[in-house]
Amino acid sequence: MTRIDIPADSLFGVENLPYGVFATRDNTLPRVGVRVADYVVDLAAGLGDDVFAQPSLNPFMAQGATSWDKTRARIRELVTGDLAEGTVFAIGDVTMHLPIEVADYVDFYASEHHASNLGRLFRPESDPLLPNWKHLPVGYHGRSSTVVVSGTDIIRPNGQRKGPNDPAPVFGPTVRLDVEAELGFIVGVGSRMGEAIAPDEFAQHCFGAVILNDWSARDIQAWEYVPLGPNLGKSFATSISAWVVPLAALEDARVPTPVQDPEPLPYLRGEEAWGLDIQLEIEWNGQAVSHPPYAPMYWSPAQMLAHTTVNGAATRTGDLFGSGTISGPERDQCGAFIELTCGGKEPVTVNGEKRTFLEDGDEIIITATAPGPGGARIGFGEVAGRVVPARKG
Amino acid sequence: MTRIDIPADSLFGVENLPYGVFATRDNTLPRVGVRVADYVVDLAAGLGDDVFAQPSLNPFMAQGATSWDKTRARIRELVTGDLAEGTVFAIGDVTMHLPIEVADYVDFYASEHHASNLGRLFRPESDPLLPNWKHLPVGYHGRSSTVVVSGTDIIRPNGQRKGPNDPAPVFGPTVRLDVEAELGFIVGVGSRMGEAIAPDEFAQHCFGAVILNDWSARDIQAWEYVPLGPNLGKSFATSISAWVVPLAALEDARVPTPVQDPEPLPYLRGEEAWGLDIQLEIEWNGQAVSHPPYAPMYWSPAQMLAHTTVNGAATRTGDLFGSGTISGPERDQCGAFIELTCGGKEPVTVNGEKRTFLEDGDEIIITATAPGPGGARIGFGEVAGRVVPARKG
Repeated sequence: MTRIDIPADSLFGVENLPYGVFATRDNTLPRVGVRVADYVVDLAAGLGDDVFAQPSLNPFMAQGATSWDKTRARIRELVTGDLAEGTVFAIGDVTMHLPIEVADYVDFYASEHHASNLGRLFRPESDPLLPNWKHLPVGYHGRSSTVVVSGTDIIRPNGQRKGPNDPAPVFGPTVRLDVEAELGFIVGVGSRMGEAIAPDEFAQHCFGAVILNDWSARDIQAWEYVPLGPNLGKSFATSISAWVVPLAALEDARVPTPVQDPEPLPYLRGEEAWGLDIQLEIEWNGQAVSHPPYAPMYWSPAQMLAHTTVNGAATRTGDLFGSGTISGPERDQCGAFIELTCGGKEPVTVNGEKRTFLEDGDEIIITATAPGPGGARIGFGEVAGRVVPARKG
Repeated sequence: MTRIDIPADSLFGVENLPYGVFATRDNTLPRVGVRVADYVVDLAAGLGDDVFAQPSLNPFMAQGATSWDKTRARIRELVTGDLAEGTVFAIGDVTMHLPIEVADYVDFYASEHHASNLGRLFRPESDPLLPNWKHLPVGYHGRSSTVVVSGTDIIRPNGQRKGPNDPAPVFGPTVRLDVEAELGFIVGVGSRMGEAIAPDEFAQHCFGAVILNDWSARDIQAWEYVPLGPNLGKSFATSISAWVVPLAALEDARVPTPVQDPEPLPYLRGEEAWGLDIQLEIEWNGQAVSHPPYAPMYWSPAQMLAHTTVNGAATRTGDLFGSGTISGPERDQCGAFIELTCGGKEPVTVNGEKRTFLEDGDEIIITATAPGPGGARIGFGEVAGRVVPARKG
């Protein structure tokens, strides 16, 4: 038997208990574990529950909120007691896998600062915020097949681009590869066609949250995106963190959303519109270049899910929805380099070099933390990715 | 033993042999069958192959083109010989299910007539065709969870809309519910991240085609779609026909695409750019109101798949991509009612009534046929759907 030493200041204490899918050298079958301090506890072994002997969290997430709560209490008991040999692994000894089987992936655009910044860059001739923006959480469907776990290399995408002065489009590797620091929310219990999820029903459906990097090829995106929205500029890769922080671990992070004026339509109103006081950090080749705050996000997670389903669209276990780029009001709070560098015109200094967009070999690591009970901090781990050269077109 | 009488003019003769997933009263387990004349042959029973004892075509599709070809030859032998009792069912005695498990769903916009018509209606102040349209097949990701089989009722969606003269958006059931007659193409064998599928590799990846109705709420779409494209105006339902016509059955339907000028970039060029001479018909409450032709579609199916993967996006068994609305140059060849009625301003007469958009109780049936070998016709069956009233918002 063994006991885990959990330092009081650990980002993965008993108030967090995020779920992930891991494998070990001696047992390469991916299975569900929980992170505690710098250890991973095998839940199928520890709790004797086969729902965790699965390569994704989906079967457990489908059980619903009552089961999530009960299991969380059992896990807390498990990890603070004596653990049997073979159920605990040092974090350095495991390989992490994609924690969920992604059903539909929708990405929103919920930061007013980001939407305004991008509006100014993409449509300099008109109002930065479009007329619909304050009435509904604007979003679009992204590609599920290319959602990858933190640590997966990002192959620089090829594609068409056409600058304003190019006579015709050219083909080749993107020259404006960017990041978008976001949170991703995961649906545990879906909804049937015709059924709308009200904002106050959010906690019955949403299992937890991850950090998400919506890699973006700005030159491809700018040329393709009218009138049907982003496609190949985004569809090549979306990275998520390996650890899914349960919604229950984020209760102390709840903060009111900014004042929503005009008042949203009734289907977007709940008892209270809460956002999350989560602080992100973007590291570019080891240097912190931005600190995007989630708290000022205009649309709440519950409003995004309510909007997704108000037309009767079905949701499923494993649905993933992204917040959209998280950008605060300050330059060093921007969640995308196109904003941080003012469209590439004002480079930032990274390890002494002037940089705008991503070069081959660059590594981006986004981390996030939230307040927990009694001064504890809740960690999301990280979403990391290294850019590798484009394949021959 | 029994023999199927196959009339020479059947749309489901031995040159077609479309696959579907069916169940019967005595065996409610969905399984794969092939349609022959007005009969369905149970393939798990008939061929003794468990890959067909599955609730979707995905496991069979994943086997690849060599297996598809061999199986097609075996099926032709099977259905023209003596069939054991319990392997053949009259089409009226079966219930059809969704034939595939949909992975990612992408919808294109490949008809020049449709794109121009919609451009004139949505952006009357500018060129109907946007600058990128002749350089790349414009497309966007749609919702996989709401792809339903022909015959599924369509619940009128609720949502936000705002007319140009409305001071603020209003919420309620769409008042401009429309259809989009399309073909859908299904990926049998996917591709890995970083791997691009060239146009000439299409037949190694594409398993077959269905008719697709991309139901659209035009008022919701018009208000939401800038800048990230359609979302709730489309995500409530997409219907596909129950029978998947194998690509091999469409060889005689191949026709050159229209001349593509400017010449597309090399990644969109193959040995030959072929379209399909498929004729569709839209019935509105039993009355044929339009006859959209697939042959004039600007972008070919192979070009759509090549574009989807050129940035390295992975594809999977069960990926579905739609052609976009099929509209010919004539008014009675329009694949959407917004075009057929000139934005609702010029009603059509349906069973003696002036009609623009869909009313509750309306039934839409889209059918399609293609030329086969030796004067035979290849039928797609139909994609049908009835509009039922909105749920309380």
